[in-house]
Amino acid sequence: MSTSSSSDVGSTGFFHRLRQRIDRIDSVVSVGLDPDPARIPDHLREHDLPRWAFNRRIIDATHEHAACYKPNAAFYEDGDGWRALRETIAYAHGKDVPVLLDAKRADIGNTSRQYAHLLDHADAITVNPYLGRDSLEPFLSRADKGVFVLCRTSNPGGGDLQDLELASGDRVYERVAALADLWNANGNVGLVVGATTPDELASVREQVPDLPFLVPGVGAQGGDAEAAVTHGLADGVGLVNSSRGIIFAGEDRGEAFASVAGEAAKRLKKRLNQYR
Amino acid sequence: MSTSSSSDVGSTGFFHRLRQRIDRIDSVVSVGLDPDPARIPDHLREHDLPRWAFNRRIIDATHEHAACYKPNAAFYEDGDGWRALRETIAYAHGKDVPVLLDAKRADIGNTSRQYAHLLDHADAITVNPYLGRDSLEPFLSRADKGVFVLCRTSNPGGGDLQDLELASGDRVYERVAALADLWNANGNVGLVVGATTPDELASVREQVPDLPFLVPGVGAQGGDAEAAVTHGLADGVGLVNSSRGIIFAGEDRGEAFASVAGEAAKRLKKRLNQYR
Repeated sequence: MSTSSSSDVGSTGFFHRLRQRIDRIDSVVSVGLDPDPARIPDHLREHDLPRWAFNRRIIDATHEHAACYKPNAAFYEDGDGWRALRETIAYAHGKDVPVLLDAKRADIGNTSRQYAHLLDHADAITVNPYLGRDSLEPFLSRADKGVFVLCRTSNPGGGDLQDLELASGDRVYERVAALADLWNANGNVGLVVGATTPDELASVREQVPDLPFLVPGVGAQGGDAEAAVTHGLADGVGLVNSSRGIIFAGEDRGEAFASVAGEAAKRLKKRLNQYR
Repeated sequence: MSTSSSSDVGSTGFFHRLRQRIDRIDSVVSVGLDPDPARIPDHLREHDLPRWAFNRRIIDATHEHAACYKPNAAFYEDGDGWRALRETIAYAHGKDVPVLLDAKRADIGNTSRQYAHLLDHADAITVNPYLGRDSLEPFLSRADKGVFVLCRTSNPGGGDLQDLELASGDRVYERVAALADLWNANGNVGLVVGATTPDELASVREQVPDLPFLVPGVGAQGGDAEAAVTHGLADGVGLVNSSRGIIFAGEDRGEAFASVAGEAAKRLKKRLNQYR
């Protein structure tokens, strides 16, 4: 089924850099930087940019275990938010950690070109396939950047559309996996496949053996860590994300919140490494 | 097929307010505010916020013909951009014109709640259905705000997923229309259906007689104005959008750019009103 192999990924490509990072720190953990304003510790709220103050401390405490950071754009959608996001990305890069912007964007041609500027700062992005190939072209054409296409998501309603059976017998999410594989001319495409549905993880992996997955839902959403690792990695490359399960692990611990987050990231790394 | 009727839309609902606006100015024109930085006139580039300077002049020239303004979020995704967007929305409201934020957002539960804050300022939003019902709930539950669900988009790849035939015989976009109709408990749901596919406009209208459509693609994309009006309106309520075809109509006219945009908006209003 696959039209690409990992050998297509040039030495400048995102997945090449991600592999180096995974090897160097022995971790496939993606740390989701979703600084919910309502959950930022009180002592950081006086800061000029509380989300940036929070993220910086989380990065300090977790970067040795983080194959990448995954800020979700929804938590930065205001004037101060974009400043906090820029600072966060620069700081992560200062620690040699790539940044995957979880933006789930897609729009028609001239508009998607605007969204593609989000990749000027981040190393990779998540995108929504509903508008089809040309809507993703401005992302796909950035050969040095990673593009993770939403395939089967881990939320309760994820199946409303994604699990619909097509006349061909495939499910919609399976067709999306096949299309993403076709769209992978630059070796920079991955898929988002949730850990809350291990059977679906296995079937998508079988269908597209060479595409790295970003597997969310292992932390607060309670997904299956073994399935995430066994099926999520393509030739050793892939990401298993936890957001709230790491960054808010020390929510009730005052100024110790960051060190508790560091312990949670380390624990997840060890738990996942059992299956690698 | 429909589970709602226009009588469900309370006197505070978006579609009620939109109907009042349409009646007052005798127009169903949506003016897309997509201030592409590369196309903003030179004399505005020295301004502190060029996008806001541009939009303000466009609003001054077009508001008598605008049933709503539709800024696309992609053109505001940076620190200054969010300031420009806030000023733009406030200014449009000062002219009594509702604002539909074309954001095409969707994410899982706790994250979509963050995106739903975008509705604190705007009157309505576009959303992407790929993640299913719960991903849209934080928008749908804002009963006073409009939620336009992407159904059949006007871009060349719009059919890649949307036109796939389901085992039931429906196309994916037809199922999305049916789901959106089910999700319309608050009478605040509309659909985005492109004018570049008039047959599909007709078939979706037949399927969901009571949902107002936002029909893009009549301007620069060359869609069918008659089909947009005939099928896009539900009991007289709906929107036909032009972005570049209005705001850049006077692109080569220097400081006269805004008055040329005003003429273009008026011309589109008249063209559409032939079919109402």
